[in-house]
Amino acid sequence: MSDIATSRRSRITPEREAELYGAVLDLLREVGYDALTMDAVAARTRSSKATLYRQWGGKAELVVRAMHNQKPGSIADVDTGSLRGDLHTIIGREDDCVMAENVALMRALAMAVHQNDDLRQALRELLVEPEVEEFRRIVDRAIERGEVRPDNPALDYIVHMLVGAFATRMLIDEQPPTQAFLRSYIDAVVLPALGVAPAD
Amino acid sequence: MSDIATSRRSRITPEREAELYGAVLDLLREVGYDALTMDAVAARTRSSKATLYRQWGGKAELVVRAMHNQKPGSIADVDTGSLRGDLHTIIGREDDCVMAENVALMRALAMAVHQNDDLRQALRELLVEPEVEEFRRIVDRAIERGEVRPDNPALDYIVHMLVGAFATRMLIDEQPPTQAFLRSYIDAVVLPALGVAPAD
Repeated sequence: MSDIATSRRSRITPEREAELYGAVLDLLREVGYDALTMDAVAARTRSSKATLYRQWGGKAELVVRAMHNQKPGSIADVDTGSLRGDLHTIIGREDDCVMAENVALMRALAMAVHQNDDLRQALRELLVEPEVEEFRRIVDRAIERGEVRPDNPALDYIVHMLVGAFATRMLIDEQPPTQAFLRSYIDAVVLPALGVAPAD
Repeated sequence: MSDIATSRRSRITPEREAELYGAVLDLLREVGYDALTMDAVAARTRSSKATLYRQWGGKAELVVRAMHNQKPGSIADVDTGSLRGDLHTIIGREDDCVMAENVALMRALAMAVHQNDDLRQALRELLVEPEVEEFRRIVDRAIERGEVRPDNPALDYIVHMLVGAFATRMLIDEQPPTQAFLRSYIDAVVLPALGVAPAD
């Protein structure tokens, strides 16, 4: 995804881009998606609106790219030699504070997504689909290693399992998802569903 | 839960109560939780606000009880003799249209819940906790029958798995959850995680 991302924004430095994305996420937390305006982003980052539109096309893409930018690198780089190792490593890259931040950001988008088709589309194309794809690659390696059977029906539901645990933790247990919770969920649910013994 | 519910509202008939709850859910779909007022509920149902407050205490409880009322009876009545049978039966009680309605209603509450402590509390006490409790009873019977080991770590995550699948279906697959999807998820994820062969 970063190759697509770079081409259109080649004129601004990575530092400036990170600063801009940070300001967008601050605004998103402060006012929510619907009340976030390109004017406010321009004012806070001392940019022109024309620049913002030229570089990002619009609010939806800017917000989703800001969320993506905050993620710690590509999941696809993770390759520990076992599915359990890979999944635990992915969880370990976001500490509990970052995860709590992400819950707050996803929540700010959760409602907006149903009233804004462009946001929904950007979220799917720039966050959901690449993530599904990257998890798929990790699991494909597990299949090649013989850890998971290629016809295991849970293969279709890996992202549902992981995102579902992340999304329901607060509602069900009144506490934010943490590394410890997600690791325990991976060992108790995801690996057994895929036919992998958690102690492997 | 219905015993608590009945005591305070003994003065209105079940038909009138159902009519009132229907109007509340219509309003919730139309305007969302924050814009829903007791005045609007009173106007649409030709009730006095005083009656609404006396019977339900406030907006949060009224909305959550309306959502609960719409559910097809108590899960705890389901007892088919196998965990798979019980879970499939629970899923089978809400047809795909009702399920799509519920997704829309839950979505209308999802944002509001984080800004309204009384809504969050009502949702937990009147919907989440009773549901967790009822699933627990179904699983306890599976443990008694020897279907599930009492120390299976996935026992803590049954509601996360089911609600998670329900909540993430639209985001990940761009289609609402259906009976067929949830049955497939139960067979592919929930039962294997609990150590139950799906074909049992």
